[in-house]
Amino acid sequence: MCYNIFIVETVCVAWFSLEFTLRFIQDRSKLAFLRQPLNLIDVVAILPYYITLVVDSTSKGEKRLGSGNSYLDKVGLVLRVLRALRILYVMRLARHSLGLQTLGLTARRCTREFGLLLLFLCVAIALYSPLLYLIENEMAATQEFTSIPATYWWAVITMTTVGYGDMVPRSIPGQVVALSSILSGILLMAFPVTSIFHTFSRSYVELKQEQQRVLQRRTHFLLRSRMAGRGSSSRSLESDALFPPRGAADAVRQGKA
Amino acid sequence: MCYNIFIVETVCVAWFSLEFTLRFIQDRSKLAFLRQPLNLIDVVAILPYYITLVVDSTSKGEKRLGSGNSYLDKVGLVLRVLRALRILYVMRLARHSLGLQTLGLTARRCTREFGLLLLFLCVAIALYSPLLYLIENEMAATQEFTSIPATYWWAVITMTTVGYGDMVPRSIPGQVVALSSILSGILLMAFPVTSIFHTFSRSYVELKQEQQRVLQRRTHFLLRSRMAGRGSSSRSLESDALFPPRGAADAVRQGKA
Amino acid sequence: MCYNIFIVETVCVAWFSLEFTLRFIQDRSKLAFLRQPLNLIDVVAILPYYITLVVDSTSKGEKRLGSGNSYLDKVGLVLRVLRALRILYVMRLARHSLGLQTLGLTARRCTREFGLLLLFLCVAIALYSPLLYLIENEMAATQEFTSIPATYWWAVITMTTVGYGDMVPRSIPGQVVALSSILSGILLMAFPVTSIFHTFSRSYVELKQEQQRVLQRRTHFLLRSRMAGRGSSSRSLESDALFPPRGAADAVRQGKA
Amino acid sequence: MCYNIFIVETVCVAWFSLEFTLRFIQDRSKLAFLRQPLNLIDVVAILPYYITLVVDSTSKGEKRLGSGNSYLDKVGLVLRVLRALRILYVMRLARHSLGLQTLGLTARRCTREFGLLLLFLCVAIALYSPLLYLIENEMAATQEFTSIPATYWWAVITMTTVGYGDMVPRSIPGQVVALSSILSGILLMAFPVTSIFHTFSRSYVELKQEQQRVLQRRTHFLLRSRMAGRGSSSRSLESDALFPPRGAADAVRQGKA
Repeated sequence: MCYNIFIVETVCVAWFSLEFTLRFIQDRSKLAFLRQPLNLIDVVAILPYYITLVVDSTSKGEKRLGSGNSYLDKVGLVLRVLRALRILYVMRLARHSLGLQTLGLTARRCTREFGLLLLFLCVAIALYSPLLYLIENEMAATQEFTSIPATYWWAVITMTTVGYGDMVPRSIPGQVVALSSILSGILLMAFPVTSIFHTFSRSYVELKQEQQRVLQRRTHFLLRSRMAGRGSSSRSLESDALFPPRGAADAVRQGKA
Repeated sequence: MCYNIFIVETVCVAWFSLEFTLRFIQDRSKLAFLRQPLNLIDVVAILPYYITLVVDSTSKGEKRLGSGNSYLDKVGLVLRVLRALRILYVMRLARHSLGLQTLGLTARRCTREFGLLLLFLCVAIALYSPLLYLIENEMAATQEFTSIPATYWWAVITMTTVGYGDMVPRSIPGQVVALSSILSGILLMAFPVTSIFHTFSRSYVELKQEQQRVLQRRTHFLLRSRMAGRGSSSRSLESDALFPPRGAADAVRQGKA
Repeated sequence: MCYNIFIVETVCVAWFSLEFTLRFIQDRSKLAFLRQPLNLIDVVAILPYYITLVVDSTSKGEKRLGSGNSYLDKVGLVLRVLRALRILYVMRLARHSLGLQTLGLTARRCTREFGLLLLFLCVAIALYSPLLYLIENEMAATQEFTSIPATYWWAVITMTTVGYGDMVPRSIPGQVVALSSILSGILLMAFPVTSIFHTFSRSYVELKQEQQRVLQRRTHFLLRSRMAGRGSSSRSLESDALFPPRGAADAVRQGKA
Repeated sequence: MCYNIFIVETVCVAWFSLEFTLRFIQDRSKLAFLRQPLNLIDVVAILPYYITLVVDSTSKGEKRLGSGNSYLDKVGLVLRVLRALRILYVMRLARHSLGLQTLGLTARRCTREFGLLLLFLCVAIALYSPLLYLIENEMAATQEFTSIPATYWWAVITMTTVGYGDMVPRSIPGQVVALSSILSGILLMAFPVTSIFHTFSRSYVELKQEQQRVLQRRTHFLLRSRMAGRGSSSRSLESDALFPPRGAADAVRQGKA
């Protein structure tokens, strides 16, 4: 089965590499092309395959010599990390899914709210963890709360209402602290979430309108170019599809401002 | 007790079969009737009883011969699946409950949002699971995370804040990954949920208005038919109740568009 | 300590009984008085104390005879249930807290939504439990899911995202079913919740306005009665505080309809 | 490493002390300065360092004499509590973060809603805990629910959907009670949350506008003082930045009332 997966992956990577090379050649400014986050993700997702291939072929000869080699161990770890990075293939979907694009746009627009959410969470964790650590170690017999960083983990799991149950306060004052940390966790988590929601739904509507305008222009363009009756319209169409949307997007943004 | 349940079930199935047969006979186009999802559910819910009856009576003779028969085992499994399907009886309630109808309508209108929700969840699971699997196996002594698919299960349980606690990351980098997966889980899950809510409450209002119009027409029709003083109004009333609502629903939809 | 609690409780019950008796005597129609839910709660909260007293004094003599008496065991169980009912004292707070009154009003106005919530939950539980029970018993070695009713408990704990972790599906198809049940649980739970929220905040505003009108009338009345300079206004003031609010509430409701 | 942390802390505390002293000297009314909550937090966060220093140097000589001294044990406990209080340093961030200021403003404006949330939670816990305790001890064999206060903890963990899983009802009536407590927990928790959200987002917008006005005035002031061409404007600017915002905030509040 491992062999079949290897074949499937080779075909996929070959296709992705071909497509990426063509887009890279066709683009005018190579630097601007490499700066776009989606293209960077492509590079990071495709490269590991080739690196793995190279390292595998070179390390085959060395493997026989000594297995206790710490240098080879590190190479193996890097290889496994690179293999895990190949999962970034799924981010390529973002090119074609309106939802994932909206997610990206929301993430870029809501950095302030995400920061706020993290700040609130950190402050609350920093306040409750030492308190609970002290109380539990003074009053309860069981020693689940071994250190303050370990109690940070408890605070995260409790304030997000996940509640694994691997660390549970046993003393009554500790449980009172746990109650107040749960309540403040629910409230704190929810504050920035509402404003992130609004940004998401607004971004979704904007991107949809933008997409429809692009489609309208494209059909309009196609009709005109058909009436004019000349070929080779595909390249100018492509540039039409790539550049005007930005203008449309800017127009939408100006209409909002 | 098992015998009493059998009697109750027989009575229920007999009643459902009778009702279904009458509706099937009375309908004009048999094919359109069978295409409606609610009628299909009826068939799938009633059939298992008869199949179980047939198989039970035929297999009684064979059971004495050999119990190690793998063919009979498979038949038994299919039977148990069919028995579980009988729970679809509860879906028959949808015919009479406005709430369940709204649920169905919302599900049909929000396929896009449900897809978005699943896509977000899958992308996030695909990103976090290999990362956590790698970190935990490199850094933690305990071996709870046996494989990447097993880590998918952890990601699902964590991102939906269920938190069973059967798989818990122990290393500090693993816990940081867990924190970020919990936060992104809460945010991702919540994105499409808000728009699904709006669709639900709008559908509820629409269906309520529709129902009231049908009721008004029905009382209006009854009054007229009483004034005209003729019998046999029940059938035309039935057709009135079945067809005009669609018109009303279309009118509502056109009014919205 | 147990003795001190007994004294505190005796004082409380004495006060509550006195207040209840006075209100009962002062009211014109005794039947309407007993029909109000808040007064019923008072009766149910006060009575257990007296019953416990009576039973305790009569059973003291009998206790010496035989402890294996099944009749006495049942009496003991009933007594403990009655003692637990004394916690209804806290519901007496509803008389003085605007928030608890709003809660009661919301509960009365949202019976439809609560029913919907329960119906959705029941249908989802009835669909997922037998499915998971079948899958887990066919495919997984561990036998946590002993019966379908036990699986109902799993479905409740999972769909509300509580996740105790006492029952966890181990097979991969079971985990897929669990994922879909979690997602549908989050969505189903959230549907009626939003409309219950709106009713709650509307009820809160209404009750606040009503309360302010009563206060305004009361101060207006006090000013007038002071100007007129006669005593014994406390009784008519009481009736003013008891009856006009209803009118005000009706006016608010008609204004909304 | 412990020594490095000590040096970092000494530097931080020295800086904080210097800044606090300067602000204390510069302020006109010393009492009003000490009354502001942010300044109080500063005092509580800085003092433990000095107390620890003093106690450590005095107790070094005594430590040699007797370690079983209960007086020294208590001093040690107090010291550890004070050390935990040093975490209040993080609250100093509130001076510079708009988000944390909004949080404080929301907390001051929503005391009513927070009280409501706690009241609802307490009433629900007081109703469900004795009920579940009674049922579980009568019907289930396992003895997880040792007392009613211990059951309070179960109720908190269940109603907030955290679900550690350290206490799980086993009997079927107990599970029905658990279901109703989960449902009422989700609903009760969510009631005041929505109105707290609205207050938060409104406070955020208000504080943002206020900040922008202060900035505008400051730049306006700077331009004017530059045109006038005189130095020593920094002190009057500081007073301008400290006092007018209040006026602006009051204006905003009056505009809203």
